Amino acid sequence: MNCDAPLGVFDSGLGGLTVVRALRKALPYEDIIYLGDTARVPYGTRGPETVIRYALACAKYLQTRKVKAIVIACNTVSAVAPDHVRAALDLPVLSVIEPGARAAVAATKNGKIGVLATAGTIASGAYPRAIAACSTRMETTSYAAPLLVPLAEEGWLDGEVPRLAIVRYLAPLATAQVDVVVLGCTHYPLLRTLIEQEARALISKSVAVVDTAQAAALETQAFLSERCGLRSHSETLGQVQLVVTDRPESFAVQAARFLGESTEAPELVDL
Amino acid sequence: MNCDAPLGVFDSGLGGLTVVRALRKALPYEDIIYLGDTARVPYGTRGPETVIRYALACAKYLQTRKVKAIVIACNTVSAVAPDHVRAALDLPVLSVIEPGARAAVAATKNGKIGVLATAGTIASGAYPRAIAACSTRMETTSYAAPLLVPLAEEGWLDGEVPRLAIVRYLAPLATAQVDVVVLGCTHYPLLRTLIEQEARALISKSVAVVDTAQAAALETQAFLSERCGLRSHSETLGQVQLVVTDRPESFAVQAARFLGESTEAPELVDL
Repeated sequence: MNCDAPLGVFDSGLGGLTVVRALRKALPYEDIIYLGDTARVPYGTRGPETVIRYALACAKYLQTRKVKAIVIACNTVSAVAPDHVRAALDLPVLSVIEPGARAAVAATKNGKIGVLATAGTIASGAYPRAIAACSTRMETTSYAAPLLVPLAEEGWLDGEVPRLAIVRYLAPLATAQVDVVVLGCTHYPLLRTLIEQEARALISKSVAVVDTAQAAALETQAFLSERCGLRSHSETLGQVQLVVTDRPESFAVQAARFLGESTEAPELVDL
Repeated sequence: MNCDAPLGVFDSGLGGLTVVRALRKALPYEDIIYLGDTARVPYGTRGPETVIRYALACAKYLQTRKVKAIVIACNTVSAVAPDHVRAALDLPVLSVIEPGARAAVAATKNGKIGVLATAGTIASGAYPRAIAACSTRMETTSYAAPLLVPLAEEGWLDGEVPRLAIVRYLAPLATAQVDVVVLGCTHYPLLRTLIEQEARALISKSVAVVDTAQAAALETQAFLSERCGLRSHSETLGQVQLVVTDRPESFAVQAARFLGESTEAPELVDL
């Protein structure tokens, strides 16, 4: 591994920037190239074959940029495509679902885990499967929360509209008496404060909220440091470079909210 | 025009089915082939060149099905692509924005028209342009209401979440003292009752809500009857055939809500 090469991160659109934000916190000296496939966003409504085809195109583009490893910052892709991407590329490939599942299993005390995600991720069964792979003694309740993505993109992060939507989505998890709520979509960390507040009110004061973006960043940090893959020039902060497949202007406007910092204008590529 | 050929209707996904619903009411004896480009939904976040490319692919597919005319049941496409589609095909092409604009101009008394639509349609400026083309004495206030699409798709058509979102989106139209609210997105007719109720409460009791799906259906009816294009076998009701580019199963589940009737299972095609 060329430890001075950048990390490659991709997602269908904006959401994966919450993973970049978490990576920046865990690995401030790494350079990151982020590809948002905005020409084909969202992946969540596509069938698995389509998602695999798109994911391979994104990963191959990042390979041409000579990244040292790829982080799939998209739950939809992580649900169906990591093995296909690994088989096609000679590069380490990390994803968000397995770290999220491991963090949830580590956090639960009563073995009851709740997952909120997009309809596509829920339908894939990827979270119950990844959780069961960590421990067969877990009970997973998954619930599709499709309105949370547009709420995050609209920037409605507090007030009654997101609060009532969250209450409605948490209700089945409260009935199932979970003690962990997994944010199974990269958009959800923007609503984390409100989800945490309502989960404490509705489920229990001690409920744990697992942020899969954060879990993925911590596993990436561990992965690189175990393999001596951390950047050697650790006296200067790493750079973030954004690449999109459509509408760089409107991406730039929203990116700062997801990333928590400003960046250079996104580059436009055709995959 | 072969008057016994079907009408071709297309949209990026489900929304255009509200146009089919309105067409069924206005033209119950017509056969309709509806193409939902679900592999590439939504178009609203794409750039104009991409939307034009997708629209041409949809229209050309419908041409292979020997339709007598095409109705573009998508505001995003109607905003940028009708002239490109007309230039590429030797077929009559109708769209939703111009009929919606004409209906709004006919309905207003004070010359102040409000438009709710997706961010893409608003950014295109297509409604103010189409309204100004009907009359230069109109003042148009447009406002992006991106949350209404996922609310319609989630089936949250009443209750506090959609009500409060609608109140928030109507506020700038109330300030502008419009007397007409145009539903500038084909998903919005599902929320029409609630939008009408809140517009009456917030704006004025006499506010008119213009449904562009309905306006497009009435213009299509007039267009066909003027050109002797109505189906001759008018003793049997017409058939609706659904065609999608991805995930026919999940489309079938939601289609009935948008269409207001059940249909055969959608056919899957690759464009």
